[in-house]
Amino acid sequence: MRLPVEALTRAAFAPFGEVIDADAGAATVAINAGTAQRHAALAEVDTSHAGGRAVISRVRAQPRALPCTVNRLERHPLGSQAFVPLDPAQRYLVVVASAIDAVPRAFLATNGQGVNYRRGTWHHPLLALDRVGDFLVVDRAGPGDNCEEAALPQAWELQLPS
Amino acid sequence: MRLPVEALTRAAFAPFGEVIDADAGAATVAINAGTAQRHAALAEVDTSHAGGRAVISRVRAQPRALPCTVNRLERHPLGSQAFVPLDPAQRYLVVVASAIDAVPRAFLATNGQGVNYRRGTWHHPLLALDRVGDFLVVDRAGPGDNCEEAALPQAWELQLPS
Repeated sequence: MRLPVEALTRAAFAPFGEVIDADAGAATVAINAGTAQRHAALAEVDTSHAGGRAVISRVRAQPRALPCTVNRLERHPLGSQAFVPLDPAQRYLVVVASAIDAVPRAFLATNGQGVNYRRGTWHHPLLALDRVGDFLVVDRAGPGDNCEEAALPQAWELQLPS
Repeated sequence: MRLPVEALTRAAFAPFGEVIDADAGAATVAINAGTAQRHAALAEVDTSHAGGRAVISRVRAQPRALPCTVNRLERHPLGSQAFVPLDPAQRYLVVVASAIDAVPRAFLATNGQGVNYRRGTWHHPLLALDRVGDFLVVDRAGPGDNCEEAALPQAWELQLPS
């Protein structure tokens, strides 16, 4: 069955985490004697559970061809996980679900938008589009099993609106 | 006096923090069924002192014209601070010092290199080059005074090697 792809907005994504972008709505403060603007605290890093700590990593993802099929999701019970594209032209799809047996939602991230999955949020691994994509990742390192995978009750097909 | 500008390498920057790049030397693991490569834990986020937490922000910096003069540094006694450019073409200068009365060192960050200043490291605020630059910032929010500024014993001039 086809899953509709929505625009990625803060309001629509709020049940799953935070959108990391510089659009209207972010509190902006002038810093460094006015030479820079800071969009402060767009996302909260939540990684201290069970003796964890936050680390910064990079991921290089191969692009997916569309349409593609999504039939499994994963979640990290011990920490948040943020992905931010390192090129503003890099588009990618974000697939999340409020429960493993709920209908997932798919969002198209554009214009350098990043996402921060709240701790425990079901999501699909990176679905880079168009080209090989580099992403910055901020997530948890530490003891314990922080990755759970599960099959969706049915497969969903993703395609961009034409 | 002119401060020489060095290439930004992990070895040269090690006394001050971590370089966040994907060059040789980073441990690489295949993830997501082989569709992505992860350069894991390039930098450690150290923000839990004095009741702090880690947050993700964005900064838009105006470019500096060169030569420019550096005469003050700042440091964050309660947490690390990472800057990663959100466009691989964005160059910037990194100025750090092992002590406020030590001779600073200047590095040119290229090819999407990010830096993570270790907690308490003296550094200059963002010195974007060439164009307006967007950076992702991972640092500390929370109680306490986490910014200390001080004048250098002398002013230093920065210029790129011709």
